[in-house]
Amino acid sequence: MPSVSKRGEIMPESPIRKLVPFANQAKEQGKTVYHLNIGQPDLPTPDEALAAIRNIDRKILEYSPSEGNRSFREKLAKYYHKFKIDVDVEDIIVTTGGSEAITFAMLACLDPGDEIIVPEPAYANYTAFAIIAGAVVKSIPSRIEDGFALPPVEEFEKLITEKTKGILICNPNNPTGYLYTRSEMKKIRDLVKKYDLYLFSDEVYREFCYSGAPYISAFHLKGIENNVVLVDSVSKRYSECGIRIGALVIKNKQVRENVLKLCQARLSPPLIGQLAAEASLDTSQDYLLNVYDEYLERRKFLVDGLNRIEGVYSPIPMGAFYTVAKLPVDNADDFCKWLLSDFDYEGQTIFMAPASGFYTTPGLGKNEVRIAYVLKKEHLAISLKILEKALEVYPGRTV
Amino acid sequence: MPSVSKRGEIMPESPIRKLVPFANQAKEQGKTVYHLNIGQPDLPTPDEALAAIRNIDRKILEYSPSEGNRSFREKLAKYYHKFKIDVDVEDIIVTTGGSEAITFAMLACLDPGDEIIVPEPAYANYTAFAIIAGAVVKSIPSRIEDGFALPPVEEFEKLITEKTKGILICNPNNPTGYLYTRSEMKKIRDLVKKYDLYLFSDEVYREFCYSGAPYISAFHLKGIENNVVLVDSVSKRYSECGIRIGALVIKNKQVRENVLKLCQARLSPPLIGQLAAEASLDTSQDYLLNVYDEYLERRKFLVDGLNRIEGVYSPIPMGAFYTVAKLPVDNADDFCKWLLSDFDYEGQTIFMAPASGFYTTPGLGKNEVRIAYVLKKEHLAISLKILEKALEVYPGRTV
Repeated sequence: MPSVSKRGEIMPESPIRKLVPFANQAKEQGKTVYHLNIGQPDLPTPDEALAAIRNIDRKILEYSPSEGNRSFREKLAKYYHKFKIDVDVEDIIVTTGGSEAITFAMLACLDPGDEIIVPEPAYANYTAFAIIAGAVVKSIPSRIEDGFALPPVEEFEKLITEKTKGILICNPNNPTGYLYTRSEMKKIRDLVKKYDLYLFSDEVYREFCYSGAPYISAFHLKGIENNVVLVDSVSKRYSECGIRIGALVIKNKQVRENVLKLCQARLSPPLIGQLAAEASLDTSQDYLLNVYDEYLERRKFLVDGLNRIEGVYSPIPMGAFYTVAKLPVDNADDFCKWLLSDFDYEGQTIFMAPASGFYTTPGLGKNEVRIAYVLKKEHLAISLKILEKALEVYPGRTV
Repeated sequence: MPSVSKRGEIMPESPIRKLVPFANQAKEQGKTVYHLNIGQPDLPTPDEALAAIRNIDRKILEYSPSEGNRSFREKLAKYYHKFKIDVDVEDIIVTTGGSEAITFAMLACLDPGDEIIVPEPAYANYTAFAIIAGAVVKSIPSRIEDGFALPPVEEFEKLITEKTKGILICNPNNPTGYLYTRSEMKKIRDLVKKYDLYLFSDEVYREFCYSGAPYISAFHLKGIENNVVLVDSVSKRYSECGIRIGALVIKNKQVRENVLKLCQARLSPPLIGQLAAEASLDTSQDYLLNVYDEYLERRKFLVDGLNRIEGVYSPIPMGAFYTVAKLPVDNADDFCKWLLSDFDYEGQTIFMAPASGFYTTPGLGKNEVRIAYVLKKEHLAISLKILEKALEVYPGRTV
């Protein structure tokens, strides 16, 4: 048998994935499992998107243009203008989800061996996409004690070498819910400018900012327009993760040309998803306001509830729909597994994501979990009760 | 401005792409342009697929499993059984089109610097996918004079080095329409076995075999089951290129595990496309028979018509819906451009794909074009007339 590629072997398996069999087993045993582990919103997709799908009036489901449908890209441009992101239609390339957007961004900008600096904890699949591109992720830890604020600039500079080609941020952040401040974004801009780096900016959660402080897009930063590669997706904001529609926004013509070649090779992004995504942009402001209010309420409910549990600490996440919480346990991987395999409270248990999967520095996040508030309040209430009861009896409890 | 990646720079631009502006210009000038240049079938998508989309009854368009919906994979397994391809559900992984299938196959099996041997002319994007994986395509020319038969085994063996990890075939073939014979497939099997290579087998045109000789799948070959990576797609057989649904069929567990990691990183294949593709498998046998008869008739009409034109030669393609024809011109790239920019016959012209884009060996295919018979017979008749008239006056005519 021929050998498989090394890149597959070094691609880390997510600790969440490892727990899926235990969650399935728990369900087979008749337990109710509350899923706090994934970023799959429970809120309905906009009616406009579903109607666009139901009303499809084509006889042939043809390829769409490699860069995406023009009408969709035009609407996206207008959408970005609302956020004072000054882009033309030509700057926007439709991708097969945010996943393809990040992969193509890295493939277009980075050569094998090139390094990017990523504040951690970070979305675990960034590492997988970097491995595809042959690039190396240099993690820079942010700490729960600092509320996951941007690490000091000096820490970034320590990591910068001849091979450093970019910084990758996710703002608002998955997994921490952190929202970078204006002053932090300025520091990032200065770094990008000083060292002439790419700034890969994943902004898929921009609708979900819960403080008065504004969301600062990478494209709001002056003087680095040609360094910015903005990653976007309709998945989270319209609860349509399954349609696989994302976008890259790029002003740098050379990068865009590289990305377009990749787009042409894979022929086209999904046609029906584009129709749904385009229709979603027409959804009423009420839809997004309702979604916003719902998450805002859940956030308060969840974070207050977590911090009321003895030994548990969660900073207040300012965006997205996640929080990373510290638990009084020796090993959150084991605890999350134990919750599924050995524990139940009145026949119910919870599935949380061990935070270890969001760190690449070994040993970090060992007593942290990511909780997605993608369940309604009543289920969050039960989940909090389950967590509290579990911690009372967990053998690996530390404090 | 930071530099872009080299892989983007070395990724070749397709000669078809280069002609698109000239085609657009021709249309702006009021010319009717017949598109013989792309593999986009003009036949209707099955009603079952369209109905599945119209009848979608979900409130949330959620992620589907990374490996694809179980019900779809079960139906695919049954579908393969009809072709005596003996696979389990677990062997089947749903991908975002055949493009992602090939990319993931290469990423899972090949390390940077690894070589694969590909008979040319070949589908141009194989090169792009290989560049993504850092792999090197070693082309082995097949010749129009031999009807594009498999090159002799000795020619393959000349190219085999320590770095050779696989052979990639497309059967029935795009662009030539060639269908590998049983004896050719046995030769490929022996090579694969002798040198322990991967056999990447792109079989997306299996429904379109026009001779009494059987279609031989790579999985029909005994003793190399663990070396075969079968690439598939519903795009062509159901005229649904836009839904972006393909598949990988892999019996080698290690390769499958590598592919699954890639699938998990990109989360899921398109949800709605999967619903349409699954429904397509329920389409009546009549649908496929009608499509088959239509292509069969067009093939005869086109190939006979081509060979009747002075100086033009097309072998009889045994499969797919393409043929590569030799023209009495010095440079088919120039001729195809001239057809769009300088010629018209009663206000009409044709867009053909210069074959140079399907060869990587410089100089090959210079007087060849690929013609896709994805137009109805009346339009093929006009296209043939346009070609004949154009060759009568083309300044670069050679014979």
